[in-house]
Amino acid sequence: MLSKGRLEAFSDGVMAIAITLLVLELSPPEHGNGVSLASALWHQWPSYVAYVVSFLQIGVIWLNHHRMFAPVRAVDGTLLLLNLVLLMWVALIPFPTAVVADNLRAGGSDASTAMALYGAVILLTAITFVALYGWITHDERIAGTLPSRRALRVARLRFSVGLAAYALAFLLSWVSAPLALGLHAAMALYYAFDQATIQTESVTSVEAG
Amino acid sequence: MLSKGRLEAFSDGVMAIAITLLVLELSPPEHGNGVSLASALWHQWPSYVAYVVSFLQIGVIWLNHHRMFAPVRAVDGTLLLLNLVLLMWVALIPFPTAVVADNLRAGGSDASTAMALYGAVILLTAITFVALYGWITHDERIAGTLPSRRALRVARLRFSVGLAAYALAFLLSWVSAPLALGLHAAMALYYAFDQATIQTESVTSVEAG
Amino acid sequence: MLSKGRLEAFSDGVMAIAITLLVLELSPPEHGNGVSLASALWHQWPSYVAYVVSFLQIGVIWLNHHRMFAPVRAVDGTLLLLNLVLLMWVALIPFPTAVVADNLRAGGSDASTAMALYGAVILLTAITFVALYGWITHDERIAGTLPSRRALRVARLRFSVGLAAYALAFLLSWVSAPLALGLHAAMALYYAFDQATIQTESVTSVEAG
Amino acid sequence: MLSKGRLEAFSDGVMAIAITLLVLELSPPEHGNGVSLASALWHQWPSYVAYVVSFLQIGVIWLNHHRMFAPVRAVDGTLLLLNLVLLMWVALIPFPTAVVADNLRAGGSDASTAMALYGAVILLTAITFVALYGWITHDERIAGTLPSRRALRVARLRFSVGLAAYALAFLLSWVSAPLALGLHAAMALYYAFDQATIQTESVTSVEAG
Repeated sequence: MLSKGRLEAFSDGVMAIAITLLVLELSPPEHGNGVSLASALWHQWPSYVAYVVSFLQIGVIWLNHHRMFAPVRAVDGTLLLLNLVLLMWVALIPFPTAVVADNLRAGGSDASTAMALYGAVILLTAITFVALYGWITHDERIAGTLPSRRALRVARLRFSVGLAAYALAFLLSWVSAPLALGLHAAMALYYAFDQATIQTESVTSVEAG
Repeated sequence: MLSKGRLEAFSDGVMAIAITLLVLELSPPEHGNGVSLASALWHQWPSYVAYVVSFLQIGVIWLNHHRMFAPVRAVDGTLLLLNLVLLMWVALIPFPTAVVADNLRAGGSDASTAMALYGAVILLTAITFVALYGWITHDERIAGTLPSRRALRVARLRFSVGLAAYALAFLLSWVSAPLALGLHAAMALYYAFDQATIQTESVTSVEAG
Repeated sequence: MLSKGRLEAFSDGVMAIAITLLVLELSPPEHGNGVSLASALWHQWPSYVAYVVSFLQIGVIWLNHHRMFAPVRAVDGTLLLLNLVLLMWVALIPFPTAVVADNLRAGGSDASTAMALYGAVILLTAITFVALYGWITHDERIAGTLPSRRALRVARLRFSVGLAAYALAFLLSWVSAPLALGLHAAMALYYAFDQATIQTESVTSVEAG
Repeated sequence: MLSKGRLEAFSDGVMAIAITLLVLELSPPEHGNGVSLASALWHQWPSYVAYVVSFLQIGVIWLNHHRMFAPVRAVDGTLLLLNLVLLMWVALIPFPTAVVADNLRAGGSDASTAMALYGAVILLTAITFVALYGWITHDERIAGTLPSRRALRVARLRFSVGLAAYALAFLLSWVSAPLALGLHAAMALYYAFDQATIQTESVTSVEAG
């Protein structure tokens, strides 16, 4: 019933809105009593880091979502539900982002709690993503052509490494909250450049073909 | 004048935005004076339940909207107005969701009032939905081919059961607010799996055909 | 350069977002000290009226926008700028809506100021709309076929009556703020039903043709 | 992999949302103790100026984005990343807009800081824009046909002047914050009319051709 095109358009819409709502976490700082705006703005630095990291995370999820849906030729119910759950996590990301922004400077257990919440939401997003990939590639009725056994093995390896890194970031929250945020930043950057490389390769191969 | 495609695109846009705005109901808890962030976050549990339930509700409305519009071949004025009223209720859902999130823990009559408001908006959404379905299927000028008499009878039965359940959830608010929210959650899950089953059947029948 | 399709899609997007952001004006009432949630919610009634009236206004603008753009076949610079100004007013509507919601109950000059602000934004929207219609229908390079002289006369009469009514609503703010809001509500309802009638006629004529 | 169409649709979505979120910077003023709503609203004038200037800025970026992407025929990784960075700045604009609105009236160093923040975000947007243009036009694999050497020289000159003016506006913040905002307003108006002229020329040439 529901076509792949409509599902992608709705998913794109939700991801575009979630990525743009991230800015609402940033608000003009209240200041006064001899505190300058400049120092009040500097004081908010965790907000800026959190904004950039979450922007990249959602941007990368969007890019990956497209690549994952490229071979899909029919949308069944499980795909629909898994995609809805994925969107539920993605649309939630502005919330842990704001919690991190508010609590990172506090340090101690509150900073760890904030980062653990952030890490948990990202980890759940990643798990849902892998489940969706698993469903899409398990059956030729969904994906027109299944990836080769070798491509599947490579994908599984990559996903396992990714999930392990997100789990590590989650655990790191209790060791050092800034370190955990740094790992998230590093992974978002890694995936962004990774996606860019894949895209460039595909352009080059079209060119060569 | 206005084509079905444009009406669907606008409706999709409003539903995608409403489902994503739900996250704004969740804000970093203010805490201090010896209250840890962790306990302040746990304290907000009704917000998380309300987020998930409303996300599923809007997701299901979106899926149903598509199925309902599939046979439409012309958009007349009544369809336009009913659809605008439906969107008005859907776009409103973040408000009662936030009211429930803020008042469920209070218990007593405030929790009941909050759930009754939530139940009323969902009930009005469902009634408008049924009216829209009734209009679409009453005339071949709107739906190219009218559903069979049997299909209509089944649809009417399903809608009646649905409306009765939403009315029950509305009334339950005064008995037990958490129970009413639980019924909403159960119905959202039921409809999500129901939609998923229908979608899977249609994929299978395309496959078989 | 910029095609009509892209301009319409961007305009649709802005209008869909503005209509959905209206809900942010509604927030769970703060209450306590013996005030029940129920009475705090009733106390917010101007917010609900303002929500419905503004929702209808933006809905009607969206419908009219589509009808107005139907004959457009080329987008020139003036059209682009006038449309951007129109979107600037439409995207602004949630602000005066919130001001009305906050101040209508206060009565006196603050209620009048709030309604005058609301009326001014709607009046400016209407004036920009008429200017856009004038530009589209002044030249065959923009509209493929110009409307007949009689159709133009009818349109001009309708627009003049509309502008006069919005100007009256603006002035009425200082006589009675609720009355001014009532006139806005009446006009939004009138235009909604008017659009619905036109849409139905066009469906019927396609049927007959 | 990712097609130009999808990239443009996602970019359009983010820009349409960012431009519409600007209204959230405007909120009903809190007033009382003998301060009328009217004077409280006047008091917010920097908010209105900031809304209009930022609305025009994002509108112009959207128009330019379309013109820049018109000749693109393949999306490579660098294009993808640069575009994501551009969107990150554009989606951020509501934040410095709100900071300016809150601090312009304060005058002194806080007003300068606010305008410098605004100027910095606009300058970074412009620099990313130029980098994107440079990437698109450096290689025939990306742009199907490269612009003539003369067109490139003209474009480079225009961009240099634009960047210089934004850098000047940034520096002006410390001399006079209102003057810096005025320069931003003047540039947004200039670019809006410039885009309008280009669009009109292209319509006329289609007509003539």
